[in-house]
Amino acid sequence: MPRIAYFGPSGTFTEMALADLEVAAVFDGPVERIAAPSQGAALDLIRSGAVDGAVVPIESSVEGSIPATLDSLAVGPRLQIIAETELDVRFTILARPGTSLDAVRTLAAYPVAAAQVREWVARIMPEARPYVSASNAAAAEDVAAGRADAAVSTALAGARLELATLAAGVADHEDAVTRFVLVTKPRPAPAPTGADRTSIVLELSNEPGSLMRAFAEFATRSIDLTRIESRPTRTGFGTYRFYLDCVGHIEDTAVSEALKALHRTCHVRFLGSWPASAPTGTPPPDDEPHAEWLTRLRAGVADL
Amino acid sequence: MPRIAYFGPSGTFTEMALADLEVAAVFDGPVERIAAPSQGAALDLIRSGAVDGAVVPIESSVEGSIPATLDSLAVGPRLQIIAETELDVRFTILARPGTSLDAVRTLAAYPVAAAQVREWVARIMPEARPYVSASNAAAAEDVAAGRADAAVSTALAGARLELATLAAGVADHEDAVTRFVLVTKPRPAPAPTGADRTSIVLELSNEPGSLMRAFAEFATRSIDLTRIESRPTRTGFGTYRFYLDCVGHIEDTAVSEALKALHRTCHVRFLGSWPASAPTGTPPPDDEPHAEWLTRLRAGVADL
Amino acid sequence: MPRIAYFGPSGTFTEMALADLEVAAVFDGPVERIAAPSQGAALDLIRSGAVDGAVVPIESSVEGSIPATLDSLAVGPRLQIIAETELDVRFTILARPGTSLDAVRTLAAYPVAAAQVREWVARIMPEARPYVSASNAAAAEDVAAGRADAAVSTALAGARLELATLAAGVADHEDAVTRFVLVTKPRPAPAPTGADRTSIVLELSNEPGSLMRAFAEFATRSIDLTRIESRPTRTGFGTYRFYLDCVGHIEDTAVSEALKALHRTCHVRFLGSWPASAPTGTPPPDDEPHAEWLTRLRAGVADL
Amino acid sequence: MPRIAYFGPSGTFTEMALADLEVAAVFDGPVERIAAPSQGAALDLIRSGAVDGAVVPIESSVEGSIPATLDSLAVGPRLQIIAETELDVRFTILARPGTSLDAVRTLAAYPVAAAQVREWVARIMPEARPYVSASNAAAAEDVAAGRADAAVSTALAGARLELATLAAGVADHEDAVTRFVLVTKPRPAPAPTGADRTSIVLELSNEPGSLMRAFAEFATRSIDLTRIESRPTRTGFGTYRFYLDCVGHIEDTAVSEALKALHRTCHVRFLGSWPASAPTGTPPPDDEPHAEWLTRLRAGVADL
Repeated sequence: MPRIAYFGPSGTFTEMALADLEVAAVFDGPVERIAAPSQGAALDLIRSGAVDGAVVPIESSVEGSIPATLDSLAVGPRLQIIAETELDVRFTILARPGTSLDAVRTLAAYPVAAAQVREWVARIMPEARPYVSASNAAAAEDVAAGRADAAVSTALAGARLELATLAAGVADHEDAVTRFVLVTKPRPAPAPTGADRTSIVLELSNEPGSLMRAFAEFATRSIDLTRIESRPTRTGFGTYRFYLDCVGHIEDTAVSEALKALHRTCHVRFLGSWPASAPTGTPPPDDEPHAEWLTRLRAGVADL
Repeated sequence: MPRIAYFGPSGTFTEMALADLEVAAVFDGPVERIAAPSQGAALDLIRSGAVDGAVVPIESSVEGSIPATLDSLAVGPRLQIIAETELDVRFTILARPGTSLDAVRTLAAYPVAAAQVREWVARIMPEARPYVSASNAAAAEDVAAGRADAAVSTALAGARLELATLAAGVADHEDAVTRFVLVTKPRPAPAPTGADRTSIVLELSNEPGSLMRAFAEFATRSIDLTRIESRPTRTGFGTYRFYLDCVGHIEDTAVSEALKALHRTCHVRFLGSWPASAPTGTPPPDDEPHAEWLTRLRAGVADL
Repeated sequence: MPRIAYFGPSGTFTEMALADLEVAAVFDGPVERIAAPSQGAALDLIRSGAVDGAVVPIESSVEGSIPATLDSLAVGPRLQIIAETELDVRFTILARPGTSLDAVRTLAAYPVAAAQVREWVARIMPEARPYVSASNAAAAEDVAAGRADAAVSTALAGARLELATLAAGVADHEDAVTRFVLVTKPRPAPAPTGADRTSIVLELSNEPGSLMRAFAEFATRSIDLTRIESRPTRTGFGTYRFYLDCVGHIEDTAVSEALKALHRTCHVRFLGSWPASAPTGTPPPDDEPHAEWLTRLRAGVADL
Repeated sequence: MPRIAYFGPSGTFTEMALADLEVAAVFDGPVERIAAPSQGAALDLIRSGAVDGAVVPIESSVEGSIPATLDSLAVGPRLQIIAETELDVRFTILARPGTSLDAVRTLAAYPVAAAQVREWVARIMPEARPYVSASNAAAAEDVAAGRADAAVSTALAGARLELATLAAGVADHEDAVTRFVLVTKPRPAPAPTGADRTSIVLELSNEPGSLMRAFAEFATRSIDLTRIESRPTRTGFGTYRFYLDCVGHIEDTAVSEALKALHRTCHVRFLGSWPASAPTGTPPPDDEPHAEWLTRLRAGVADL
């Protein structure tokens, strides 16, 4: 039975994402779920060989990329993303039975969750002071243990700990969605489906124009970039890592040519090609007719 | 006496930055310091007319841009940056007198600070659970009030509250520097100095190549981009705001031509041109000889 | 009375173009016409001060640029184009009275004319051997003097020399048009009309990408290039002069910015901005709203 | 024995080029030489199957591309260049025995040759009127037949017709070189040598930026363009064919990727890849290490 780590404890959205991926038959049969205390810890369990894969959140439509996940993917032995799933992220506000909304003085939340309900909290419980929890599930545990009055958490966690629901479906942004990915050791990418996502990390030298040249490798090949995020490399102001997602698969000629071209001039880390959970953007142009034309040219065919 | 808000309370690095800017004579004489509970609140005090300016942190060499500052500058009535200063960011670990390092069970920290001492904390006090505070100064207050055992804070805050110093000069990255900016209502930019920084926010349509075209406006004019950060616009995956800094001043021809060109095709918010606290990158090329050549051409001078 | 040289002798299309320009009131009143034996000679008469201007053919829709004109404009003291006119180019085949088409053994023609009736001649008088004449008018003189049996020439020349017309309206390409320009010493360009042409000569260093960078100065500014011709510089294989026409006027901001940018990296010779005889292509984008935005930014206006 | 047409008659530089190619063992053994009256006629003999190949001049370092050759290669059934040779072009001035330089009243010349001795003729025999001949060899025949007093021709032609030499080694430009190519029906290109030339014809749509995009396909791949010439397509002002030579071979990955990319957006005619007679420019970058990296990525190799 494959062992799959997830950013836990039990009850997090990440565990829900893992369940979704199980249902989607990404694995061959059931898996053993191993809770890890952070995204980095989950990924390191792959590197150490303790697990066969890990599920971690990678991007929120509200907050952008999840820094801890990106940083952990960008350094250390290379890992590879092989699948994704997206969850509508709405929170349940939990409290010990008998606690009313007005009585909440401290509100436990995982910071990423706190950021997604900031406006709701400011409106509904403006007096509540924040208590930082290590995950959405941990926030519920903090309430159960009396360390906070209420928690920004999930229904699953509430049920598990027999907490009361003060509010459900809470989210500042109606269409908040979080993307979760399944990560493994490097392996051949899943077969192209025609609606794939490819993800890379670029480290660019700081000379003027280097970024434009890198983007030109995608633009001249009509490859659609769907995520572009930069983070400092922590070696001083002005040097960045770029986290790029594009539509397409490493087996698509346009994508593989772009990767080769980038590899000529900068450090490229390939994070994987996998089926997109929802179609986004425009697939790269079909190379086949042009490759055929080239083959005929090389063969010396007169009539093109 | 000008009223200047800062991201407080008293004792934050931001107040230290404000003091630096006072010493640097950015203001005409002394200022009245108004503590604000967040970066956004400090900036809103300018918009409401309650203060004449505000000092906020904008970028850390370790963590990158400060999201709360950027988001607050990017939306709402336009504000303008007119000066900057940089501080080496090293923290002091404070506790109530008599507390030893081993006895620390909860560690209060402002999240940005927590991120900058994460490795140190994991090494020295791995058992301490995090307690989120609203600022570096608030972390010290949380310790003084008994809400946490120790605080990631500043010497200034420790002295003010008569706390003990458990460790000083704490920083995961030796060269961690934070940049703070002085913001006001829109006004003519300070005169060019030859070592200036210009900052803009771009909102790009999501068509392929639009980003490359935007960067091309800088690259073809040999303008050196020194900060490139993207943040989702919170309207769904795939749309971004880009926060760009370049070397140069809005009064430099290359910069003003690039701004006009960007304005033709995308939404541009100008955040200001001001003297850089430390020279970075390459100034834009001197336009003067080429402008003179053009003038002679237009005048019909034969001998060029 | 201004003295205007033309590529003669009397009876050439160029003289007809000069007459058109007179009618179009390019000059203040009548001009004295001075025939010159070649395009280069006509232009050198301006440089020596012997004439005030010269009319020369510059481009044929069939044959492309007229090399002798381009070469003479590209080297030596700079001259400037201030007006243009276009003529439908159809030839009259002239012979001495009594000569029939079948009896033509030698056909006199100016080489540019010969190229434009090549197919007609191959079809109608395949046996006629070519006799090279120095101009279209000279071809008629060669027939009048008995040096050739027939001439590819103009009706005007036939009338002047009392020759018979063997065929009229002869042209391989129905829509053959030749553009003629009026050249003077450098002077301020005629005022912009909104439908102008600007012409330059670029000498590019032979490094990879230099041509693309030069074209990018036009493309990024949405300036429409309507003529792109290259000629070797005669200093070995692989170095070229580029003759470029664009839509727009040196007083248009987009055009003047592109000229300045080109001047930074390569040798640019400005050949003039003048009203186009027929509207072609797309005028450069209007700079005014963007310049106004920039002015407001610089003034520190809050509400943009 | 292969039948090879050349732009004749016997005695032209083109026949000398054909002899050079024979010596260079481009053919398997001796060839039968077939003189053709023009470049187009020589190439059409290939198309009709009357010959196996043809040698034609394609480019002069002084005059640029030979229009008649380019036009004939650009339209009609596709042909392919498989070899090249370069000749120093210096002319011999021939006359009938007893004729002195002062006595020359008419000077027979093929127009391309006339253009290359224009300055010399203007200096040495300014009174001689031009007589157009159909080739360099034909000019000698015109003198032998009494149709002109002297000829711009070759020593070979002079010897064949027993004419006297008035001047030898005549050329306005000391380093004048003409390149000749061997053309056949389409066939697989000769094997890459590391110093190859590839030639194509592009027909570009007239939208702004299309040319820049085409050049970008070469520039982003670091492919060195060594010839860039444009000629109108004869369908009105403003539409052009571009004749491009680059360093490299259709079997080089960078070149084949550029060809495919161009084929996606414009009409491309491949004229061949063949060994360059003299090394020019910089070969395209080696794709192999990057292709290997890609292969390892696709195979899921962890340690790159």
